[in-house]
Amino acid sequence: MTPIKNTKTLPLAITMGDPAGIGPEIIIKACSDANLKLEQTALVYADAGVLQAELERFNSLHPASQKPLKLLRIHAADSWQPQSGILQFIAVSQLPSPIKYGMTHADYGRAAANAIERATHDTLAGLTSAVVTAPIHKEALAAAGVQFPGHTEMLAALAGHPPVRMMLANQELRTVLVTIHLSMRAAIDAISFESVLETLRITHRALQHNGIANPRLAVAGLNPHAGEGGLFGQEEIQHIQPAIEQAVSEGINAQGPFPGDTIFSKARHFKQFDAVIAMYHDQGLIPVKYLGIEEGVNVTLGLPFIRTSVDHGTAFDIAGKGIADHRSLIAAIRMAQTMLSHQPLTLTHS
Amino acid sequence: MTPIKNTKTLPLAITMGDPAGIGPEIIIKACSDANLKLEQTALVYADAGVLQAELERFNSLHPASQKPLKLLRIHAADSWQPQSGILQFIAVSQLPSPIKYGMTHADYGRAAANAIERATHDTLAGLTSAVVTAPIHKEALAAAGVQFPGHTEMLAALAGHPPVRMMLANQELRTVLVTIHLSMRAAIDAISFESVLETLRITHRALQHNGIANPRLAVAGLNPHAGEGGLFGQEEIQHIQPAIEQAVSEGINAQGPFPGDTIFSKARHFKQFDAVIAMYHDQGLIPVKYLGIEEGVNVTLGLPFIRTSVDHGTAFDIAGKGIADHRSLIAAIRMAQTMLSHQPLTLTHS
Repeated sequence: MTPIKNTKTLPLAITMGDPAGIGPEIIIKACSDANLKLEQTALVYADAGVLQAELERFNSLHPASQKPLKLLRIHAADSWQPQSGILQFIAVSQLPSPIKYGMTHADYGRAAANAIERATHDTLAGLTSAVVTAPIHKEALAAAGVQFPGHTEMLAALAGHPPVRMMLANQELRTVLVTIHLSMRAAIDAISFESVLETLRITHRALQHNGIANPRLAVAGLNPHAGEGGLFGQEEIQHIQPAIEQAVSEGINAQGPFPGDTIFSKARHFKQFDAVIAMYHDQGLIPVKYLGIEEGVNVTLGLPFIRTSVDHGTAFDIAGKGIADHRSLIAAIRMAQTMLSHQPLTLTHS
Repeated sequence: MTPIKNTKTLPLAITMGDPAGIGPEIIIKACSDANLKLEQTALVYADAGVLQAELERFNSLHPASQKPLKLLRIHAADSWQPQSGILQFIAVSQLPSPIKYGMTHADYGRAAANAIERATHDTLAGLTSAVVTAPIHKEALAAAGVQFPGHTEMLAALAGHPPVRMMLANQELRTVLVTIHLSMRAAIDAISFESVLETLRITHRALQHNGIANPRLAVAGLNPHAGEGGLFGQEEIQHIQPAIEQAVSEGINAQGPFPGDTIFSKARHFKQFDAVIAMYHDQGLIPVKYLGIEEGVNVTLGLPFIRTSVDHGTAFDIAGKGIADHRSLIAAIRMAQTMLSHQPLTLTHS
């Protein structure tokens, strides 16, 4: 007989993010859209009171437009069963209400960390299929004693420190970062033969795993004009070019280093490349965010499970007002589902 | 009596760029468009044989579509008179024909430099109204003993070394660079209170001079998340923030430092800002070039005259084939004319 675990559909674990931010709001908004039927796919890791309050506000702002969502608390992921109109959640905290939107608080940071830890644990245990995260607030996490510059680093630690990379993707571009949350000086020091090569290997494997047979990877240079033959810096000659050559010798379809100012335009709409390897945070994120961030997705590559995220922050300035845009969360959920299905990553991929 | 120099219209000085690149081709293409009547505005600084060869190829590729352009060599800028259908030029070299397209050659570099030097001289002397440049090739210039990383540095030297800055502009974004052609390590070292403040002053004056009464200037940070309060680097706290405060105390409408990955999106279409001050080459050029470079313009701010340029290179790979896109040159000419008229810089400015 086939084991039960393989015959039933596993839920997608969605973490609430910082409760003082827009995370809970965008989760309720996305799950209240009757067309998406997300409640039949998702298991939310959240504070019960926060989720209830967000649902009530949503319903008061959108009265009787459709059959309202109901919430159901479950105590373990393996008791989740898809149910129409009922959003199931696992409680990760008991925060006093009302939430102080836009405020940094250790309890909020602890609650956000609890959601990530529990969701990761359940996914590693095979109880949930993937992790989709709403935005956290670094200072709140730090106030709770959780010292990570971002989700990516925290998830890597929870998974036993495999080498991971952040990929940002939208409908027209994918970019994978060699370095993330470092000062520019430290980022330059962290660009090495090994770090560039590891990025190429991780990206190649991840895109292959997701329906692109021979991923075409472009590598950006660090310096202006990719160093102009050594005139504006040696990193391309000393580290980046040798890493590309090693990757090519391993069968990876990598090219570069290309000048950073023009390679993203060439990779747009996946015409010439399936992904661009960027050397540092802003180099990769500027082009992804330039056209607006509503449908961007942040994907962690290299983890032993699939993890996607919105590509925006907690938006403390608009939290609690009911005006947050939930399109990035829907895009992150769709991306996780696509990756689970091993279908090509986007419809626009040619 | 009014002096003659002030009653007649001065021509725009257009330099050919490297003759092995696409510069001469895009000049002939732009000037052959009968609707633009550029030949009645422009004085070209070029090699006679190169210009003639480009014109002949253009006419063979576009037979009898319109009345063909004629070339007229003049020996000094002050003998220029607007004439319909006749493009006037000053000869800067006598290169053997045919040109070896796509080849780096000291003679080609010398010819390109001659054009820039003569056009700058004539503009400083009040014989031409502004300088518009076609792309040069740095290695060819260097082979000719002209050691500059780009036009901007060469023009500043010819003008007596005033502090200058490169502005990149298209229909939806203007960005001004604190540092240009330096390795990233050297660029970080060059980001100082003085260099950021000088950039703000130059940009403020230039935009005011060009029809924007109170230019709204956004300043990007150097580090991810603009340093995240010192967590990812100190440059924002030590240099950039104090420079912004000093600029504000001088009446400059400057804000920031903003995270580099989102500020360009906010400045898009000039909705929140008239220009973004970028700390280094790729930070400023990635967003300007992301959507395609056909209509981008490079403007040098801080010179004692107006200078605009195409924002692309010599394109050696397609030179001599008749397939180069001349839209950036037309945009550069229009920008120079707008700046000469002191009209607001673009139609889309709100």
